[in-house]
Amino acid sequence: MKKGRVFSGARPTGRQHIGNYLGAIQNYVALQEEYECVYCVVDLHALTTLTDTDKLRANTEEMALDWLAAGMDPQKSIIFVQSHVPQVTELHTILSMVTPMGWLTRLPTFKEKIRIQPDNVNYGLLGYPVLMAADITLYKADSVPVGEDQAPHLEFTREIVRRFNFHFGPVLVEPQMKLTPFPRVMGLDGVNKMSKSLDNHIELASSPEEIERRVMTMVTDPQRRYRTDPGRPEVCNVFAFHGFFSPKEVEAIESECKGALVGCVDCKRALARNLAQSLAPFREKRAEMARDPDLVWEILRDGAARASLIAQETIAEVKQKVGLP
Amino acid sequence: MKKGRVFSGARPTGRQHIGNYLGAIQNYVALQEEYECVYCVVDLHALTTLTDTDKLRANTEEMALDWLAAGMDPQKSIIFVQSHVPQVTELHTILSMVTPMGWLTRLPTFKEKIRIQPDNVNYGLLGYPVLMAADITLYKADSVPVGEDQAPHLEFTREIVRRFNFHFGPVLVEPQMKLTPFPRVMGLDGVNKMSKSLDNHIELASSPEEIERRVMTMVTDPQRRYRTDPGRPEVCNVFAFHGFFSPKEVEAIESECKGALVGCVDCKRALARNLAQSLAPFREKRAEMARDPDLVWEILRDGAARASLIAQETIAEVKQKVGLP
Repeated sequence: MKKGRVFSGARPTGRQHIGNYLGAIQNYVALQEEYECVYCVVDLHALTTLTDTDKLRANTEEMALDWLAAGMDPQKSIIFVQSHVPQVTELHTILSMVTPMGWLTRLPTFKEKIRIQPDNVNYGLLGYPVLMAADITLYKADSVPVGEDQAPHLEFTREIVRRFNFHFGPVLVEPQMKLTPFPRVMGLDGVNKMSKSLDNHIELASSPEEIERRVMTMVTDPQRRYRTDPGRPEVCNVFAFHGFFSPKEVEAIESECKGALVGCVDCKRALARNLAQSLAPFREKRAEMARDPDLVWEILRDGAARASLIAQETIAEVKQKVGLP
Repeated sequence: MKKGRVFSGARPTGRQHIGNYLGAIQNYVALQEEYECVYCVVDLHALTTLTDTDKLRANTEEMALDWLAAGMDPQKSIIFVQSHVPQVTELHTILSMVTPMGWLTRLPTFKEKIRIQPDNVNYGLLGYPVLMAADITLYKADSVPVGEDQAPHLEFTREIVRRFNFHFGPVLVEPQMKLTPFPRVMGLDGVNKMSKSLDNHIELASSPEEIERRVMTMVTDPQRRYRTDPGRPEVCNVFAFHGFFSPKEVEAIESECKGALVGCVDCKRALARNLAQSLAPFREKRAEMARDPDLVWEILRDGAARASLIAQETIAEVKQKVGLP
């Protein structure tokens, strides 16, 4: 018996990096054991900020390949593309009629987005949380894993559900917030969050050579100027990565660094080796899947068909309660 | 050969009155000869202002019965319910991503609606013109009949189409505005526009008795206090109605009123008679259709099936151009 239904969505950002893995994918994989999981590539959400949409299809394919190779399992979970189940736009349109404007304009995320793209404040951008509420409620998810920054959006969904159910009767499920402490994975620069747009990332699908090349550029403790200076692992981003990828060696590395028994170059080489090794099964599975480019789309289409069954039921109930003819 | 495709939509307001007939339905019927017409009961639009949606279904049925009995012909035109073709919500969601907020907030109709329902300024209300643009462009209408008050909405649709086509390539058809001078039909009070909510209306489906009862309450020239006073037909609402419904007698009535040869009571009786007579074929056809309550829904479902064929084609093109996977 599963504990309930989880929904989570991610924009199609193409090849995933180890920040995505540690921050989300790893959790997605783990949740599959205890929950019925619905995982969605939210391509419609991507349109709120994209004007150049040429890569939408390729980015969806690459991300889905990474998801599947990392252990998100279409036998256990529903994995699909948002726009393949158009009922979400029906629910989005209906929910937009019970969403007070003020609930949207007051959200800190909207204010932040206006700051980032002042030249493209579109109607859909304001409605982002409404579309998200439609995603979650269409699939009757009762649990949504969120990081702290997404908490206001989920609270918004809960408010919309209460308002909708109050007006039209109990149809939608009010999702519980599954606050998940995601590790903050810093980029190679050690200063910013790992991000593709800053090019401070390491792709999950990187070759061992590419991993080594990238790891060797990582910033370590800036106060350790000479090989003989003792290092401070607690401020070193490379050491943080050892924590994720070198579990057996991490204690030894800590004391060797503090005692100036190992230099940063060797320490990075060890990290590159461990990282390449722990990603090896992933890399193999991904390469195997990528050999048949239709496979990933078949899996996504199958996921959409299964998602549709839930969506059709929900939308029929919603329309009936609202009184649409 | 038809001249092009017309789209028009009306909210499901239930039984139509003679203001609706003279202002819109008559024109809908006439356009069928020259254009391929797509006529839509816009139930989703109704949700922007309704919170009590219990009567949505009944109002749709009553309005459709009136439309059909008045000569809107499902053999010539596509007549259907908006929410029965869900592709409109897909296009609405996609168009919302290319709609600058400022284009919506600056519309005079939005400002007016905020004034009317300050307690229910919802996200869908702001997006009303986006949903309207989705309606028009989904069916690739090249002509839209509008009264002057709706002109800014159609201009908005044209702007969205240009913007969308500029971003993604030519897909959507930019509709031409078919400015139509609708007669302003006053209510029984002679002061306000005929309107159901003011209860100053005469339903198309009224019985002759009901027509007479209502016509007898009509306000005439307030300066004509006695039967012997000469009347001023140019300010009399009853006379305006004779213009619509007593074409053969209107000249005689004018001179008799001016010469105090006919009193207001007799003048109204004549109007009631002519009105009842000119609505008789409508009333019969409506009563006949209403005998089989399934019939109107079958017609609407058939209309939706035909509308779907156009909608599916448009949405496939749109998704492909936008680059959705």
